[in-house]
Amino acid sequence: MQPINLREYERLAESRLDAEVWSYYAGGAEDEVTLRANESDFDRFRLRPRVLADVTSIELSTTVMGEPVSMPVLVAPMAGQGMAHAEGECATARAAAAAGTIMAASSSATCSLRQIAESCPGARWFQLYVRYWDEAERLVKEAESVGYSALVLTADLPRMGNRERDVRSGFKLSRGFHVPNYLDRQEGFQLPSLTWKSLERIRAWSSLPLVLKGIHTGEDAAIAVEHGVDAMVVSNHGGRQLDGAVSAIEALPEAVEAVRGRCEVYMDGGIRRGTHVLKALALGARAVFVGRPILWGLAVDGESGVRHVLEILKCELERAMALAGCPDLSSVSNSHIMRAVDGSQV
Amino acid sequence: MQPINLREYERLAESRLDAEVWSYYAGGAEDEVTLRANESDFDRFRLRPRVLADVTSIELSTTVMGEPVSMPVLVAPMAGQGMAHAEGECATARAAAAAGTIMAASSSATCSLRQIAESCPGARWFQLYVRYWDEAERLVKEAESVGYSALVLTADLPRMGNRERDVRSGFKLSRGFHVPNYLDRQEGFQLPSLTWKSLERIRAWSSLPLVLKGIHTGEDAAIAVEHGVDAMVVSNHGGRQLDGAVSAIEALPEAVEAVRGRCEVYMDGGIRRGTHVLKALALGARAVFVGRPILWGLAVDGESGVRHVLEILKCELERAMALAGCPDLSSVSNSHIMRAVDGSQV
Amino acid sequence: MQPINLREYERLAESRLDAEVWSYYAGGAEDEVTLRANESDFDRFRLRPRVLADVTSIELSTTVMGEPVSMPVLVAPMAGQGMAHAEGECATARAAAAAGTIMAASSSATCSLRQIAESCPGARWFQLYVRYWDEAERLVKEAESVGYSALVLTADLPRMGNRERDVRSGFKLSRGFHVPNYLDRQEGFQLPSLTWKSLERIRAWSSLPLVLKGIHTGEDAAIAVEHGVDAMVVSNHGGRQLDGAVSAIEALPEAVEAVRGRCEVYMDGGIRRGTHVLKALALGARAVFVGRPILWGLAVDGESGVRHVLEILKCELERAMALAGCPDLSSVSNSHIMRAVDGSQV
Amino acid sequence: MQPINLREYERLAESRLDAEVWSYYAGGAEDEVTLRANESDFDRFRLRPRVLADVTSIELSTTVMGEPVSMPVLVAPMAGQGMAHAEGECATARAAAAAGTIMAASSSATCSLRQIAESCPGARWFQLYVRYWDEAERLVKEAESVGYSALVLTADLPRMGNRERDVRSGFKLSRGFHVPNYLDRQEGFQLPSLTWKSLERIRAWSSLPLVLKGIHTGEDAAIAVEHGVDAMVVSNHGGRQLDGAVSAIEALPEAVEAVRGRCEVYMDGGIRRGTHVLKALALGARAVFVGRPILWGLAVDGESGVRHVLEILKCELERAMALAGCPDLSSVSNSHIMRAVDGSQV
Repeated sequence: MQPINLREYERLAESRLDAEVWSYYAGGAEDEVTLRANESDFDRFRLRPRVLADVTSIELSTTVMGEPVSMPVLVAPMAGQGMAHAEGECATARAAAAAGTIMAASSSATCSLRQIAESCPGARWFQLYVRYWDEAERLVKEAESVGYSALVLTADLPRMGNRERDVRSGFKLSRGFHVPNYLDRQEGFQLPSLTWKSLERIRAWSSLPLVLKGIHTGEDAAIAVEHGVDAMVVSNHGGRQLDGAVSAIEALPEAVEAVRGRCEVYMDGGIRRGTHVLKALALGARAVFVGRPILWGLAVDGESGVRHVLEILKCELERAMALAGCPDLSSVSNSHIMRAVDGSQV
Repeated sequence: MQPINLREYERLAESRLDAEVWSYYAGGAEDEVTLRANESDFDRFRLRPRVLADVTSIELSTTVMGEPVSMPVLVAPMAGQGMAHAEGECATARAAAAAGTIMAASSSATCSLRQIAESCPGARWFQLYVRYWDEAERLVKEAESVGYSALVLTADLPRMGNRERDVRSGFKLSRGFHVPNYLDRQEGFQLPSLTWKSLERIRAWSSLPLVLKGIHTGEDAAIAVEHGVDAMVVSNHGGRQLDGAVSAIEALPEAVEAVRGRCEVYMDGGIRRGTHVLKALALGARAVFVGRPILWGLAVDGESGVRHVLEILKCELERAMALAGCPDLSSVSNSHIMRAVDGSQV
Repeated sequence: MQPINLREYERLAESRLDAEVWSYYAGGAEDEVTLRANESDFDRFRLRPRVLADVTSIELSTTVMGEPVSMPVLVAPMAGQGMAHAEGECATARAAAAAGTIMAASSSATCSLRQIAESCPGARWFQLYVRYWDEAERLVKEAESVGYSALVLTADLPRMGNRERDVRSGFKLSRGFHVPNYLDRQEGFQLPSLTWKSLERIRAWSSLPLVLKGIHTGEDAAIAVEHGVDAMVVSNHGGRQLDGAVSAIEALPEAVEAVRGRCEVYMDGGIRRGTHVLKALALGARAVFVGRPILWGLAVDGESGVRHVLEILKCELERAMALAGCPDLSSVSNSHIMRAVDGSQV
Repeated sequence: MQPINLREYERLAESRLDAEVWSYYAGGAEDEVTLRANESDFDRFRLRPRVLADVTSIELSTTVMGEPVSMPVLVAPMAGQGMAHAEGECATARAAAAAGTIMAASSSATCSLRQIAESCPGARWFQLYVRYWDEAERLVKEAESVGYSALVLTADLPRMGNRERDVRSGFKLSRGFHVPNYLDRQEGFQLPSLTWKSLERIRAWSSLPLVLKGIHTGEDAAIAVEHGVDAMVVSNHGGRQLDGAVSAIEALPEAVEAVRGRCEVYMDGGIRRGTHVLKALALGARAVFVGRPILWGLAVDGESGVRHVLEILKCELERAMALAGCPDLSSVSNSHIMRAVDGSQV
């Protein structure tokens, strides 16, 4: 029977993948406190639905940095999708395009930038790790030339998080498959010397807008704006980097407040339901990225699986908006959410 | 052995009903976060009993919109009661009348408005879904003509919630039985274009007072008052519509505050004990509606079961008031309750 | 092996008593929310120990309404102790006297007031239920004449709580044994018409000081003072009356604040450790009453068991005070405790 | 397979030690509320990582009271290490020295002060219990003469905590092995008459700086500063003394605030991860002590085990700092942490 929600995809994917690959996808850093908090902290917020709005038609379409998308749900950059399905990122890219949304292709993809671009009729962004300056420059230029429309620079991987599931299984991303974007077989983490000043250098390589991914605090959100980023993603790398770090949904409000509308703010981490998307929107996100659930769809049924996962989320979000009295995204606001513990406004 | 509390009725009912019907009654939307919160959030409040009041006799009788009831516990509108017992809503109506309280008959009842009216010597209200304007008008006029004394317009069903238990079981309300109030076999949800302006049109069909059901926020409570509703029900449809929405007991205080006494405020959701009723009263409700427990009684023992369920609640409430030092409903106040977490006043 | 703490006594007692009697002693009202909260709410507070005080000798002795006791731990009034041990309240009274503390004998004792008095060389108080005015007057006068030194009037039993364990087992206190203080076989609950004004009438029967038991709120604590009570017990009757009521340890600070030193405030409910006693003292109690643990000791080993239970508590309290830097009771203060959740002062 | 984190060392150690010895090491006082809180309260705080700092090299070295250490992680004084490994404290001392950090040797060590000193090329501190004045003076002078560089006076053991695991097993530290520092076989607890005034007398015996261990409150932290201590350890003796006392990590901020930089503040209790160390540093600790995990390493693999435990912590802390954007200890601040429950600043 076809899964009816993302949790069912999760269970199916676990049953189909090699234990080692599953652990790589599912795991977080050390005690996985942040991994769990990314999901469970959505329950710290409760929706405040409004009634008797005209919700005959619900408009989910929006833009992200000016690009139209069918819904405020984008596909997060994730490494090594070839381990989930033979067609890997190319399947994901086609599914994203079919859903009318944007996929961010990882530097550590198992398909090359060009392969993904060619297989995908829609918009796509390129997620960059600056492992080496020359490699990074080459990749950015290639991304621009084959039609990627934005750079997503990951900021929270100056080194690899301590993912003990992989330590135990002996899993290494670089061992099992080829990363065509890289000339060597090193892991994908970033130059630890990358700083705010590096942004200027990276921007100079192309005309692509720059999205900074991995913001955890209002302080860094403000600094990012001052350095002219075009957008940012509040994210803790799916709980895979610093364990004990604040969850994504809890970090979102302070980032939004610090940005004060000067650029778009996205988030990722723990989205499993349309109501989670709605909560993130109510807390000020322009859109969310979805990560692991995409891999679950890919593992279960390739491109079709990813399309279905995206369709479920869209359907859930659309219903949630109708039930919350929001006919379009501009009508979603801070007044639609409160803290569960005491009903205070966020 | 006869059940001694509502929980025991719940377990008995589960054992007697078809699994599919049970799931339809018991289930909530998606992850059932709000379903569970409706019950568990009563524990967020603690009673502050007063002693040495004269509680020789406890007066539970009150009025709702001017109609006398033996206690501030009403029977919530629920669809498809024929699945619980052959006599369906007619049995429930007789039990409510015997208990001296009011039953709200659902548009989606398995008995017709007239059948229910004829079987019930007491007062009854009619719960309306505006599926089609002509049908709604016909039903309202019929309700008035056969002696219903108020309209309860449900505001939180512009579409059906995502009830995954039913998706999995394939259950459809319209498949298993006939809804005599409807000419077609569509599900009972409402026109999504219904808005605050629609209230005027609906009121014009009859002279019945209008109760608006499905208020979740102080904002909508205030708007409802401004639109002249005669009363309102703070309710999230038993956790069956927007999952992640605020629980009913948590939404109650802000609605009461916004209304500022301009109309009566009722609530439903999670009432399983007389002390729950007392908590709702202390938070400002004029009365509560009880839903699922009525179905449990109906499933276990038809009219007698419903009567017993209502009798248990009455007995529990009466004792709770005596133990709290409240000889009548007017003596119940905000000072009888506090937040459990820190003892703060609500 | 001899039990080393009260929990071990609890388990032993459960294994030795008839299931029905055990349930009567152990149970609370309805869902037992308050019963559990009485114990678990002690964990809401954390001790703030001070170091490098001279704790060579720890002085636990104090007075309660002027009467000297070896420690601020008294024996709570409890009905029907003959079900736990053949010698019933007489054994308990001897153990209390041996421990240098005061036992409050219940109106519903299985030994008569005189029997208890004669078997007990120490001080004792009499707990009164005003079931009938003439009976109550007779009992108070008898209590005074045989040497009880205070009256403890229970305020929270205008009717019996809904103890479902007893409903299920069919247990009735009056069935299993004789209550010599009563001429009939009715349950021991109080006239529901008893009010604050009744206190005057009760005081007129004797010269005994009056302790009011069953205070849950600051409001009633203040009223009690205004009515001239000599002391009060913050108590919810061991969670056996109004389920959902505030726990005893949470109610204590507001009662203490309202009393403002005008009379002594005691508490009972959930004391299982010397550190619990210390927490109650730090929150302003002059002394605590211990209930169920006394029955556990009585059931396990009669008078010896009660003595050992009291000895364990004394030993634990003495150690806790030493470790908290408190050489005597006057050095215990509000500064020795804080709320666990956020470290705020109580 | 070699353990990869401290929890794995814990499980291995439990499997290798006698049950009685394990219980002695693992246990806490009474209900072990504080023991558990020491660990779990770290989850009450969440890290706020900063990105795009240059974290090419992470500098962990610091000083404690002027002495250089390779990292802000010291070895806590613990009694009876000979029960974990034949080489006992000597093995621990060598491991600490190899790791470039300081070991605090317990008065109740199974090796003499001299043996430890001779086996350890690095710096070491001496933890003092003042059981008898003459013994204490002798020990302090001996410690100074054989090269200990600081005194750590334990303040929270005026008597032994109520460790029920040991009561049940019959374990006595003094029975199983010889404490060479003591001439008798009494347990190691302190003179209960020790007070703040005693500090002067103790300081007069040597020129060693004095670290006061066992501070739980801001009040005592301030008094300690006024009495001229050179440093202090916020600690509740690993949850082994007063059960129900505030956890170490919760007590830390108020101590730090009270001290206002006038001396160094360390903490111990519940450190199991590098992120725990980082949280303690962010809350104002200069360094932390690690206790039980050292014993786990010692039990599993003697000196090598301890070295590995320290190496794991160092590696975890180094990574955590890099991921938090902190290239050195001076860059760690209060802004890197927040309360989990509501995001408030600590």
